[in-house]
Amino acid sequence: MYTDITAREELATLVVTGPDRPGLASTVTSLIASHEGNIVSLDQHTTNPAGGDFFQRVVFHRPGLAAAAPDIRSDLEATLKPYSMSSYFRQQRVLKRMPILVSKSAHCLVDLLWRHRRGELPVTIPLVISNHTAVADDVRSFGIPFFHVPSHGPDKAEAECRLLEILKGNADFIVLARYMQILSEPFLEELDVPVINIHHSFLPAFIGAAPYRKAKERGVKLVGATSHYVTKDLDEGPIIEQNVTRVDHTMSAADMQAKGAYVEREVLSRAVKLHAEDRVIRHGNQTVVFD
Amino acid sequence: MYTDITAREELATLVVTGPDRPGLASTVTSLIASHEGNIVSLDQHTTNPAGGDFFQRVVFHRPGLAAAAPDIRSDLEATLKPYSMSSYFRQQRVLKRMPILVSKSAHCLVDLLWRHRRGELPVTIPLVISNHTAVADDVRSFGIPFFHVPSHGPDKAEAECRLLEILKGNADFIVLARYMQILSEPFLEELDVPVINIHHSFLPAFIGAAPYRKAKERGVKLVGATSHYVTKDLDEGPIIEQNVTRVDHTMSAADMQAKGAYVEREVLSRAVKLHAEDRVIRHGNQTVVFD
Amino acid sequence: MYTDITAREELATLVVTGPDRPGLASTVTSLIASHEGNIVSLDQHTTNPAGGDFFQRVVFHRPGLAAAAPDIRSDLEATLKPYSMSSYFRQQRVLKRMPILVSKSAHCLVDLLWRHRRGELPVTIPLVISNHTAVADDVRSFGIPFFHVPSHGPDKAEAECRLLEILKGNADFIVLARYMQILSEPFLEELDVPVINIHHSFLPAFIGAAPYRKAKERGVKLVGATSHYVTKDLDEGPIIEQNVTRVDHTMSAADMQAKGAYVEREVLSRAVKLHAEDRVIRHGNQTVVFD
Amino acid sequence: MYTDITAREELATLVVTGPDRPGLASTVTSLIASHEGNIVSLDQHTTNPAGGDFFQRVVFHRPGLAAAAPDIRSDLEATLKPYSMSSYFRQQRVLKRMPILVSKSAHCLVDLLWRHRRGELPVTIPLVISNHTAVADDVRSFGIPFFHVPSHGPDKAEAECRLLEILKGNADFIVLARYMQILSEPFLEELDVPVINIHHSFLPAFIGAAPYRKAKERGVKLVGATSHYVTKDLDEGPIIEQNVTRVDHTMSAADMQAKGAYVEREVLSRAVKLHAEDRVIRHGNQTVVFD
Repeated sequence: MYTDITAREELATLVVTGPDRPGLASTVTSLIASHEGNIVSLDQHTTNPAGGDFFQRVVFHRPGLAAAAPDIRSDLEATLKPYSMSSYFRQQRVLKRMPILVSKSAHCLVDLLWRHRRGELPVTIPLVISNHTAVADDVRSFGIPFFHVPSHGPDKAEAECRLLEILKGNADFIVLARYMQILSEPFLEELDVPVINIHHSFLPAFIGAAPYRKAKERGVKLVGATSHYVTKDLDEGPIIEQNVTRVDHTMSAADMQAKGAYVEREVLSRAVKLHAEDRVIRHGNQTVVFD
Repeated sequence: MYTDITAREELATLVVTGPDRPGLASTVTSLIASHEGNIVSLDQHTTNPAGGDFFQRVVFHRPGLAAAAPDIRSDLEATLKPYSMSSYFRQQRVLKRMPILVSKSAHCLVDLLWRHRRGELPVTIPLVISNHTAVADDVRSFGIPFFHVPSHGPDKAEAECRLLEILKGNADFIVLARYMQILSEPFLEELDVPVINIHHSFLPAFIGAAPYRKAKERGVKLVGATSHYVTKDLDEGPIIEQNVTRVDHTMSAADMQAKGAYVEREVLSRAVKLHAEDRVIRHGNQTVVFD
Repeated sequence: MYTDITAREELATLVVTGPDRPGLASTVTSLIASHEGNIVSLDQHTTNPAGGDFFQRVVFHRPGLAAAAPDIRSDLEATLKPYSMSSYFRQQRVLKRMPILVSKSAHCLVDLLWRHRRGELPVTIPLVISNHTAVADDVRSFGIPFFHVPSHGPDKAEAECRLLEILKGNADFIVLARYMQILSEPFLEELDVPVINIHHSFLPAFIGAAPYRKAKERGVKLVGATSHYVTKDLDEGPIIEQNVTRVDHTMSAADMQAKGAYVEREVLSRAVKLHAEDRVIRHGNQTVVFD
Repeated sequence: MYTDITAREELATLVVTGPDRPGLASTVTSLIASHEGNIVSLDQHTTNPAGGDFFQRVVFHRPGLAAAAPDIRSDLEATLKPYSMSSYFRQQRVLKRMPILVSKSAHCLVDLLWRHRRGELPVTIPLVISNHTAVADDVRSFGIPFFHVPSHGPDKAEAECRLLEILKGNADFIVLARYMQILSEPFLEELDVPVINIHHSFLPAFIGAAPYRKAKERGVKLVGATSHYVTKDLDEGPIIEQNVTRVDHTMSAADMQAKGAYVEREVLSRAVKLHAEDRVIRHGNQTVVFD
């Protein structure tokens, strides 16, 4: 993976999924060729060439893409429909809108804002929401709107209602950059966009609260972080990216947390970039990642 | 860590543990100096300088060590007793005896035998025991005795009885190099030496059987291995060493197992070397590792 | 990468390279579809979609492959010729023949033999040659012929002549698993198959002899290993794979060498597997690696 | 390593170096005990117990340290002088002053400012100097003074003169956080404090300018970063810390640079922390690092 080689203006990303059958690669690449597209990169995966699932990501260059896009899209749908295939088509110049939710810890948030400012994340960040005010100044110093949505007590209904008012229609996906609140199932359904979380452990180890304290108690020699899609089951969603760092007996749980923070920010930033570039395809509770 | 710089003949390793109090480092190092020892390496750790636990490992060089050892040992005990400290003293020329138990998979076993033959593990390997015969030729090609102790059915009493006959008195510690049998609590008590296991996952994730299959199902992006001391609670003993390797969506559970095998052998070999060199000190269910 | 999902018997690997132009992916995949092949995996890379170089590796499944192979091959050549493209086609059941050359150090050699015996390297190992006899027993214990070809003094002509007698016609590629002799340019030309070397440093750091001693003198904090194709320029050929491991001030050059040996064996084994599976394409003095 | 366990107020760090001889550890620890210090951590290294060099770092806790410090210091000097040993003694509450020099790239700078604000770097940052103005706003948003000292043309004398005016007497060590100017030997001598640089390659590979371009041309599979003390010889000073990250054929030199930036910031931040905590001891052109 990495930066695409040509200007984004005339590049399209196409993701095709569905039941595998002979000739799919040929069908898709021929369609792109017939629309004068030149393939820049192509990844595909099959769980089983005989009756498994097929996943394909293609990036192609097409002069005058903006004008041709509707035709390409409808041709794709017509072509793939008989095979029960799904397709996702995106012009790369149209950036995904990525609001960020955060609590008090700024390390993941700032890394995202920083990478975004350096031009490394192909998204727009329309706003940041927090249930605290600790990060307000950091966010506004990047020129991004900040919203404070407090979340008191066990009843989250009011807070979630306010979140929906802000987010609904303004997000292509949402990032929880250490947002220490559980989102309800009705809220997630109503939101209806992918939500990416960073959990501060190497899942499935240390699910739930206080993973660094649990890691210290268990005496592990590595701590990690996991970025995953949020589902109704806490810390159980499809994993996008994970990494670890070494710890030892001299470190307290607080030391592990301090060191682990640097893995968290790196793992989340990487997961966000992968998702923003349409490199992650959900497959049941797993992911196909074309990096 | 790594190879010691002088010949092993006149080197001693000393491990001191107990409640921390001011002056302990001075007490131990002065005692060594008074016995004409020259310190080669010194590591120490305290969980809390005010009332915590103290751990120290010292390697020192002493001409004529073999003759002086009894005096040094008794002086140590007399000096440390008033402080409720424990000490462990070993001449490095006296290698620990390390029998290995294994089932069918040879990758961890062969790596240990291989490193031992290269002179990298300061142990003797008096024998290898397996509940299968698959590795017999491998073991004997290294000039090491092989014993076949089958373990049929749920009742392990007969097999454990036979194991005890072979191992009792012939082991300073025991390595389970992928020995796929659970050892009973009475057996471990009767054996009464440390037992080091390699578990084929990054504990505490995927405890128990079939961790690679579980890892595939959960869709993790790293698989790992954990070497730990065996206790009566399966996969719950103090961890000595862990490591991980990257996996992706193209890999089946069998592929993960094939790749993970190389992490297993590296983690176990490293844990064995650390233990053989008295670099691992148990502390409750955790370990202090001076590497 | 990793193990292919279906039996090797009816799988073919196709590598296509040449000047990039629109429609290449479609041309190749359509040809495979027309021959009733079902694509199992597909990787491609272009240095620049406008006038750059195109690289593609396709694995496809085709019932009755052995019978159909000549037709597919000639169709490929006829189809690609007008575009100045090169193609390499191989039935996966036909394993590459991989003789190994080695001097005294057995660590890389044994790791290759071991992985091969475990069925992880899709090659045959027809023979091992050494300019010493230290590894003869190891080699023969794996049931592989061993040849001793001494190489005395500065004139290597006689030794190289003997090597050619043994290797010519019996190798699809050759591995130097710590073979501490420089091969002459005429010898390499006469041999005319790829030669893979393992260099015991992170190239281009520490080219030439005694890299661990140089690493110690420079005080680096990581040492590494590099596997590359051999060219007439020592340690300058296209790099296939590299990795590193951490060292510190306590380690002598000999300690670094002992620890580095485990990186060497892992890097060489990985490079060999990549090459054996046709995942490495030379591109000038660089490589495209589809892993 | 990691955060110290007790409050910094009454902690002292002691570094002792010189020719090794029997009894040194005892001498130092007894002296600390006689001054009512309780050792919190102790590391030592000897290049050779018979006539080599000795390095020791001790952290101890001493109630009323500020009052007792002068006595401890003079006792240390008197005690160690007969053995030609050097000692460095520091109360941990007295933070080192660390000005930062930078050019246009902010990634290393911002990571240092950020970690400092989080309380992870035990230093004060009195000011930041740049030969450009690109980072001025970033610096001032952290509440730190920014100075612009342009450096035009080949004659650096005027710029270095201005740098000395600002830095002389205000620095315990200086960090070059991607400062793309070579400092003259007279300037370094006049400055007379340690200067830490980050070089954007895995030294000694790719010394000098444009290492990512050279890395791309050589086709390496890992790129790295090296933090070292600055000496009169460009990129040749003692190495404190290094790390690497994986790259592949899809990445341009610019992509490698973008990815490498994250290794640079991590390596420099770690080296700065190690130095700030007196964990790095220069030994000829190498370093002893007690981490």
